[in-house]
Amino acid sequence: MTETAPLATASPAITSPDGEMTSFMKSLVQLMRAQDVYDTWEGRSDASILEDYIVTKAQRKVIPIIGDPDPDVLWRLEIYYSAIGLAIEKETGIIASPMMKMHHEGFGRVLLTCGRLVVLVKSLRDVHRFGFESLEKMDEAGSKLVAEAAAMVATWPDVAKL
Amino acid sequence: MTETAPLATASPAITSPDGEMTSFMKSLVQLMRAQDVYDTWEGRSDASILEDYIVTKAQRKVIPIIGDPDPDVLWRLEIYYSAIGLAIEKETGIIASPMMKMHHEGFGRVLLTCGRLVVLVKSLRDVHRFGFESLEKMDEAGSKLVAEAAAMVATWPDVAKL
Repeated sequence: MTETAPLATASPAITSPDGEMTSFMKSLVQLMRAQDVYDTWEGRSDASILEDYIVTKAQRKVIPIIGDPDPDVLWRLEIYYSAIGLAIEKETGIIASPMMKMHHEGFGRVLLTCGRLVVLVKSLRDVHRFGFESLEKMDEAGSKLVAEAAAMVATWPDVAKL
Repeated sequence: MTETAPLATASPAITSPDGEMTSFMKSLVQLMRAQDVYDTWEGRSDASILEDYIVTKAQRKVIPIIGDPDPDVLWRLEIYYSAIGLAIEKETGIIASPMMKMHHEGFGRVLLTCGRLVVLVKSLRDVHRFGFESLEKMDEAGSKLVAEAAAMVATWPDVAKL
């Protein structure tokens, strides 16, 4: 992980208009910090911890089009979908368990299930370039998936509780 | 794969009372034969091809309790659950896609989904000893999973078609 200059803690980038982080972003920070077993990130702001998820257009340009994802990016991908699962649980009260299967060349599939309901299914590809233009864009994408999954649970509560 | 003496083609072991193989066993043979790209099994009976799935009590005794599954057994496991998926599709008309995630030490989880419905979910463990006492036992176990999945689809057809 490359060291980046820590951003201000209350970065507007990851707060909604009322100054609160969305449930998805909170979950992501929570799961990232849970991995920090040696407290090496203790002084770092939430925004700086999430920095590794940012791949700007300029950065993307220098990444080869085809490439094997390294363990770091696979780890971030796992945490990203786990955070979506955690946010779904906070929203609906039902545990959403992720299941991801990746080919080492960087494509695969991820499922999130609540009970017997598939609340999210996504094909993954070009995972070695996984990342978002900005924290806002990531929040938007993640929160959208959480909302869609919660809507699925609302439509099929009996299946989700099986 | 150890060579075994071929059994009689019309082995009663894999036919139901009316002399027909069950949909699950047919699917399993079909998928096994599909892997035989060099036609090395052409002269072998269905029963003999399925022999590798048999682990008798005596054989089981000599397998260590803890062990990493070898690629052959993982391959058989994948085909086994794919055959269940294929039999579900024949039964219900809806594609059932398997998703299996295994730890290299031999435990994991397998899901089969029809549309947005999880029709089968199973925790796997001790996979290095995966196998059945006899072909009848395998047929019984597999056909039961197919029937349960088909019942799920019948209960929640709208979710299975999503």
